[in-house]
Parts: sequence; structure tokens; C-alpha cells
Amino acid sequence: MSTAWKSRFAVRSKNIKSSTIRELLKITQQPEVISFAGGLPAPDVFPVSRFQEACRKVLEVNGHQALQYGASEGYEPLREMIARHIARYGIKAKAENVLITCGSQQALDLIGKLLINPGDRVLVEAPTYLGALQAFNVYGAEYVSVQSDQDGLRTDLLESPLRTGPKFMYVLPNFQNPGGTTLSEGRRHELVLLADKYGVPIIEDDPYGQLRYEGEHLPPLVVLDRENLRRDDGYSIGNVIYLSTFSKTLAPGLRLGWIVAPADVIAKFVQFKQGADLHTSTFGQMVAYEVAKDNFLDEHVKLIRRVYRQRRDVMLEAMKQYFPPEATWTHPHGGLFLWVTLPEGMDCNKLFEAALKENVAFVPGDCFYAGNSSPDNCRHLRLNFSYGQPEQICEGIRRLSVAIKQQMRQLVHA
Amino acid sequence: MSTAWKSRFAVRSKNIKSSTIRELLKITQQPEVISFAGGLPAPDVFPVSRFQEACRKVLEVNGHQALQYGASEGYEPLREMIARHIARYGIKAKAENVLITCGSQQALDLIGKLLINPGDRVLVEAPTYLGALQAFNVYGAEYVSVQSDQDGLRTDLLESPLRTGPKFMYVLPNFQNPGGTTLSEGRRHELVLLADKYGVPIIEDDPYGQLRYEGEHLPPLVVLDRENLRRDDGYSIGNVIYLSTFSKTLAPGLRLGWIVAPADVIAKFVQFKQGADLHTSTFGQMVAYEVAKDNFLDEHVKLIRRVYRQRRDVMLEAMKQYFPPEATWTHPHGGLFLWVTLPEGMDCNKLFEAALKENVAFVPGDCFYAGNSSPDNCRHLRLNFSYGQPEQICEGIRRLSVAIKQQMRQLVHA
Repeated sequence: MSTAWKSRFAVRSKNIKSSTIRELLKITQQPEVISFAGGLPAPDVFPVSRFQEACRKVLEVNGHQALQYGASEGYEPLREMIARHIARYGIKAKAENVLITCGSQQALDLIGKLLINPGDRVLVEAPTYLGALQAFNVYGAEYVSVQSDQDGLRTDLLESPLRTGPKFMYVLPNFQNPGGTTLSEGRRHELVLLADKYGVPIIEDDPYGQLRYEGEHLPPLVVLDRENLRRDDGYSIGNVIYLSTFSKTLAPGLRLGWIVAPADVIAKFVQFKQGADLHTSTFGQMVAYEVAKDNFLDEHVKLIRRVYRQRRDVMLEAMKQYFPPEATWTHPHGGLFLWVTLPEGMDCNKLFEAALKENVAFVPGDCFYAGNSSPDNCRHLRLNFSYGQPEQICEGIRRLSVAIKQQMRQLVHA
Repeated sequence: MSTAWKSRFAVRSKNIKSSTIRELLKITQQPEVISFAGGLPAPDVFPVSRFQEACRKVLEVNGHQALQYGASEGYEPLREMIARHIARYGIKAKAENVLITCGSQQALDLIGKLLINPGDRVLVEAPTYLGALQAFNVYGAEYVSVQSDQDGLRTDLLESPLRTGPKFMYVLPNFQNPGGTTLSEGRRHELVLLADKYGVPIIEDDPYGQLRYEGEHLPPLVVLDRENLRRDDGYSIGNVIYLSTFSKTLAPGLRLGWIVAPADVIAKFVQFKQGADLHTSTFGQMVAYEVAKDNFLDEHVKLIRRVYRQRRDVMLEAMKQYFPPEATWTHPHGGLFLWVTLPEGMDCNKLFEAALKENVAFVPGDCFYAGNSSPDNCRHLRLNFSYGQPEQICEGIRRLSVAIKQQMRQLVHA
């Protein structure tokens, strides 16, 4: 290590380590490996020709603006479009309530910057999104984890952790990453009531909300919160900040996400955004606007839903066929992931190595838990079903089942 | 303010306020105002048709890759190209020494994250780049300022501040923002010797280095440092981290910059980059690569040099014609800015208001100083000469001279 620098690293450099997932992704990029590890959208549904046309038009009509510096808040027509889009879910936001970020990951980083002092506790689901833990860790977050089940976060277990005074709750209500579970409507109501009662606000992360393959859309926490507070004055006050992204609906390579919050909170985020990178790519924002407009995005999301629903069904069917009866898994109503639970004593990291020998990969479940690993956290795997072709999914599940059965035999003989 | 959130802001939220420049930019966007305030490249030299062609090709040949998630380190061919480009200045870097960032501003943010504990001192030039202060302020930086003159940072004043143990030095050796000055070759040697003697490493920020309009290119600090350390083993050890960007050579709207550092320091930056935004836009990087390759960037930089040199000369000529003899200014050998010094007692903020009435704008000099403002810091203006057309520059300087003379009369009568 270059000593001139290493000796000067700040204390927070000890808070982070390389993401296991991203390291794994490198291993699993060999063509012979069928990978359920990434959270990658299917590239075959990227609307490439629409992007071609959008780039042509943006550069022809607004080339000088698209290549120039822009506002830290984001490209105004895009902010307005996002405000219009989320209105259908009852979220009453204006452009002033929307900050464009470099993907949802930057939204999480800005949230950490704005809210977390070293040692502050964040209440998270167990398991939760690894990228959020990475973002918050940088700022010295500690965690209070609350268990989830098939209906999402166990709100019946919330009061005692809320009494310990966490800074905020971080929740993914729809098709959670990694669990694939959805917070039930009853629990959504309970959650906003508890947030208000204990004065602990909520970050609602909703990257997958539009990708529902069955059942009815459930109201966002941000809407229920406002109903509970009986506020009807736009978006000035509230206990919920809402995050979403184009990464799962248009393309992750653009790095476009957004924060929806009261205007004065957005103004504070904008100050941090300025210091962080001045603003998000003008060109990328203008192209995304041009691609999404005139209802193209809505139509495109319908296509994605059809494709991903089929892949989910193929994966569920293959698991039923190949997996041993001792394994259980979630039945996601949408999103990109499902969550497998193996018998007690199974170690997902050992399984990962065995699976790689069979040329199949997944993300070991233990990295989705805040705090120290327990043997129970090592019984899980996260599987992505959006990326592979149906026949690869089927073959990948067959290979994985070979590895699982082999590990289970070793467990019995141990 | 939405109280649920305000009461929960982290301590660091007090370290930042909105950038004066960016607020000013909003005021000065009326079409009747001639603005020397922004640091904007001239949009008329953006290579729009080359971008058209690059977008078409990237999407046609590599659409699936361009729209997908990518590596946190950046797009490999772009990293290799940057390593090749900087080799001409004697910087012996490989792709592993290059991290792609969302503009140089994100490089500054990552440096703050990696190096600054609250209360750490950073040694900066007086005046220095406001965006760096903004980025470092977030992490609780304190500052030691060292005066500059026509030959850049006064290295003869450095030893005593270095003895106080700053964490690092932040220096812009070429066509400094805001001063427009260039660190002389003699002082470059002194600076790297002092950095080594006192064990205080250097961040060398070089956004404008290629935009030289007269004189010979001077060796980068990162090269002199390695010569001084007698290292010839690539880029494994060194006291200098080097930053640059495409914002002034290709287009700022892409938000593409880079950090050059020893590979193990890059690896640490990559961890923070993952938490901050996963990676920089794949599409933007691939398009920039396609635009820049086959020596296009070099040819394009020649065009920019011609255009900006002419604008600089027009501004210098107009100042000679219109400004009162009591005003002095720097003669930049490159870059985008020059720095005006007015007689004692003049207040650049009052002048700013008077200038706006004449429909001309600039950035008041006092915001480029770390720490508390002194009357002496208020005698300066930063003027940008890259953005306006020559006839606008001439007229803008005439208007500005009216405001300056008026303020000087008031000063005499006060």
C-alpha cells in the first residue's frame, strides 16, 4: 500500500469493504456460468432503437443544452414527468419535490450524508438491500434489524425497536430485494401509524413497484402517511421520503434515480448533490426524458412485466421440479428476486463454492443482514430471475439443485 | 421546514450551504445579461455531430452493454485511453490507476470521503476552487490558506503551514480557477520536495491543463514527484494524486472525470464509489470513448485552444481599453478564467449588484477563499472568457467598467 496515502485515510474508510455481490459478479461473468447473482435487468428488453431515436433528436434539437452544465436539481421536464407519473399512485408531488440522482444508489448516499451521524441507528428489514447498508455504513450507521416474513416487515415486532430511537426506518415495501416479499396493506397502515407515534420517519425505497406480475398495486407508504396526517396541501410535510429509479424500467446504464421529499428537504439534498457531483448528466437526463415520454415508458413496462413474469414462473416451476422438499422459497408478486431458505445447518457460502463447480451462481444470503452474521442468516440464497433466458433459468436451477442436494448429503454425514 | 426531517439532519448538514456561484448563475441567465460568472465551456465548439455518430454506433454495436450496469472502476477502454493520453505528459499510469468519476467534482467528494476526518486541515491556495471547498466542507475540513501570486502558490511561504500538519495539499497548477495563474516550474520542484520533506501529499487538480494558449507545457507535479522519489516502477508509490476531466475538452454535460492514483488507493476509492452511485453511466462513458478515439480529442482540443485564445485576447484588450488604471488583472496562459484586483476598499459584492444593473455579471472574489472573509478578499472578481462571443465579451467589459468606475467614485465620496 502506498504509505503516503494509507496513513492518511479517514476513520470512515474502516466502515466499508468491497461489496461481496460486485466481487461475485466478476467471478460469475464466465460464459459457462449461469448466474442468478446479479440484479441485472434483461438486456434483450432494452428499447435500443427508441434510445437511438432519442439521442438523435436530443442532439439535433438541443445539442448545446444536452452537452452543457445543468441544474443540480435535475432536468426540469424530467422532474415534471416523474411528478406526473407518481401521481397515479396518489403521490401528490410537484417538480420541486423531485431531485434527480445518479441512480437510487446516490439517493441512498445523499440520505446517509444528510441524516446519519456516526453511531446513529437505522431500522432496517432483515434481510435488506445490501447497497443501502453499504451507503449508510460510510457515515458510521449502526442498525436495528426487524424480521420479515411473507407479508414483509413484521410490524408486530416494531414497537420495542422504535422505542430505542432509531434515526429513521429504511423499508422496501414492494417485491423486496432480496426477499421478493411485499408488505401487506394492513401492515402498511400499521407502519405509518407507528412512524408517526414514535416520530421515526421512513425512507421508502421503491425501485420495482411498477413491475407487478399478479395482484393489485398497494398504496405507497408516502400516501398512507399523508392520509394518516390528514394533509392535503401538496407535499410540504410528511414522515416519508420516497425513492425510485429508471434502472429497472428503462436501463440501469443511464444511472438515473430520484428522491421525492418536501421541497425544503429537497433543497438541502441539492446542496449535498452540488458538492457530490454538481449534477447528473444533462445528456442522460434529456435522452431518458425523450425515451420515456408520450407514454412509451408505460407501454414498455407492460412488455417487461410479461417477460419477467414468464421468467419468474419458469424459475418457480423448475424449483418445484428439482429442489429437495426441505428447501422453501418466496413467491414474489413482482420485481427481480426470490429468496430460498435451506434446512438448518446449511451454509450458503459453502454452497456457493459447490454451485460454482456446477457452473451456476447466486448471492449468499448472509450478506443481506446488518450486523454480525448468525448461522441462521447463512441458510438463504438470493436468486435473480430477470436476467437469464427461460431455458437457462431452468438449466441453472437444475444445476443448483445438484449442488444443494450434495451439500445436504454432506450435512447429514457430518 | 418539514420538522420530521429537519430535527434529524446530521451534524455535517451545518457544514454546507448553497454555492454562491450556482445561485448567481440562476440570476444571470436572463438573456439581456452578459455573464462572465459561469465556468461554462463555449457550446458552439461542442462536437455535436461527432456525438451523434458516436451514439448511433455505440447503440448499434454495443447497445445491450451500454444500457446495462457496468464496473465501478469505469469502462475499461476509456480507462486505458486516459492512461495512454496522460503518458504524453510523462505520467506513467495503467488502466488500474484510473477511476472514472461523475466529473472532477465527484473526484473531490471521494477524496473528502477517503481522507478527511472532521477537523482535519487541508492546505489550499488563496484563492482556490470553490467546488473543492464545498466538497471538503461536507466532511468537516478546516483550512490552511497559502497566498498565490502571478507564479501560483507561494512556495516560499509553505514551510510554516506544512509544519502544522495538514492532511494534504490541494493545488491547481495550470491556469488556476479562479486566479488564472500557472505554477512556475521552479515552484513545482520546490512543492514536491516540500511535500516529501513534510510527508504531506498533494492533490493535483488539472481540469484545464490541455487548454494552453501560449508558452510551453510544464511538467505535472505527479511526474516531478516520481522523479524526486527516483521511482521508475509504474505508479505504485507516490505523494501525488492527479485529477482531470472531459468537462472542458469534450462536454461538461456528460459528467466524466477521473482520478489517477496508485492501484491500491484506487481500490479504496472504488469501494466508496460503489456506495456513492455504483458506477458512472455506462452509456456516457462508451459515447465519450467513441467520440474521443482515433485522435479526435486531440484535434478538437486544438480548435478549443484557437477559439478560447481569441476570446481571452479580446477580453484582455477590452480591459486595457475600458478599465480604470487602478484595476489590475492576471494574464492567463490558458484555461477559462482571469482574476481582477480592484483598489483597496472596493467591495466586489456591492459591485456585483451595480454590475447587474448594467446587465453584466461575474463571480465576486471573496467566495474563493477558505475561512472567514477579509476586506482584502473582497477586492477581486473572477471573469470567464470561454463562454461569450467576442463581441459580447467586449460589450460586457465595457458595461463592467461603467459599474467599476461608478463604484470607485462612490468610494472616493464615502
